[in-house]
Amino acid sequence: VTVFEQEHFQGKCLEFTSECCNIQECGMDTIRSIRVESGAWVGFEHHDFQGQQFILERGEYPHWDAYSGNISYHVERLMSFRPIYCASHQSSRMIIFERENFMGRNAEICDDYPSLQAMGWMMPEVGSMHVQCGAFVCYQFPGYRGQQYIMECERHSGDYQHWRNWGSHCQTPQIQSIRRIQH
Amino acid sequence: VTVFEQEHFQGKCLEFTSECCNIQECGMDTIRSIRVESGAWVGFEHHDFQGQQFILERGEYPHWDAYSGNISYHVERLMSFRPIYCASHQSSRMIIFERENFMGRNAEICDDYPSLQAMGWMMPEVGSMHVQCGAFVCYQFPGYRGQQYIMECERHSGDYQHWRNWGSHCQTPQIQSIRRIQH
Repeated sequence: VTVFEQEHFQGKCLEFTSECCNIQECGMDTIRSIRVESGAWVGFEHHDFQGQQFILERGEYPHWDAYSGNISYHVERLMSFRPIYCASHQSSRMIIFERENFMGRNAEICDDYPSLQAMGWMMPEVGSMHVQCGAFVCYQFPGYRGQQYIMECERHSGDYQHWRNWGSHCQTPQIQSIRRIQH
Repeated sequence: VTVFEQEHFQGKCLEFTSECCNIQECGMDTIRSIRVESGAWVGFEHHDFQGQQFILERGEYPHWDAYSGNISYHVERLMSFRPIYCASHQSSRMIIFERENFMGRNAEICDDYPSLQAMGWMMPEVGSMHVQCGAFVCYQFPGYRGQQYIMECERHSGDYQHWRNWGSHCQTPQIQSIRRIQH
C-alpha cells in the first residue's frame, strides 16, 4: 500500500508492506490519498488501530471520502492500518447470532449479502458473531453502506460476543449487510 | 417500499409497489427514511428518475445518509424511485470495455467485484459497458463506495456506450467496483 500526504496521490509518499500503528511516527502528518497495490487492508481513524474502520482493497482512493463510506460521522483522518488475513472466497464462513454471547437464533454466512433481510434475517441488528474461517466486513446499512466493521478469524479467535467488541467506537448493533474479504 | 416524511420511520408515510416519478405529486414534501420490504429499487435525487442514483435493497434506511453513499456530493433528497428488473445471481452477466463505444480490451463480469483491479482490470476507469443479463450496480471507488450507477439489461438494450449515459449527472468514467443486484 502507498499512502500520500496530499489528495490525488501528490506530496510526500510512503510505501508499506506490513502494518503501521502510527503514521505520524513515520514522519507523515496525515494521509489524504491511498493506492492499494495488493492485498486487503484495514485503515483506522486513530493510531494503534482504534476508532472507525475502513476496508481498503486494491485500487485508488484519491481523497478521504473515497475510503470512508460513513456519511453520518465524518472522518478525515486515517492514522494506522494493517493487512487483513483472508481465506479463499469458497472457504470463508461465519455465524451470526440474534443475541449477544452467541445466543438466540443464528444463521451461517458463506457468501456476500447486500441485504441480510433479503436472505431471511428478520431484524436490522446482529447480537454476536463467530468467524470460523476467513474475514468479513459488516456494514450498518444495506448495500454495503455506513459504519464498517472488519471481522477476522485470526483475531479474538474469531469471537465477537457483543457489539462493543466490533470496534473501539462502535455504538450500535445495527448490521444490515455483510460480505467476504478476499485478497 | 414504504417511504416516510420524517427520519426514523416517523411522520406521513406512503407505500408503493411500483414506480413513483415525483413524490411531491403524491402529496409528500420529501423522503427522509425508507423501509424496503421486498425487491430491489433504485432511488433518484430528482423527479423523473434524474440525478444521482441510490440502490435500495431490502432493509431499513433511517435517514438520508443511510441510503446515500457518496460523501463528495451531498444529496439530502430523493424525489423518484422505481423497481429494478433483476435476473438470478447465476445468470447475471455484463461486459466492460476499456474505451467508449465498446472498444478496446474487455472483461466479462458475472460475479461481485469489490475491486476490479484485484481481478486484473488495470485502470480505475471503464469506457463502456454492455449488460447481457440481469442488473448491476457500479461504483466509483473500490469496496462499493462513492457514486452509484445502476446498469440494467432491460434498459437501453443493456448498452451504455459512454459514461455520460451512466446517469444524468455522471461526471467521470471512474468505476472501481461492480456487483450484481438480486431481489
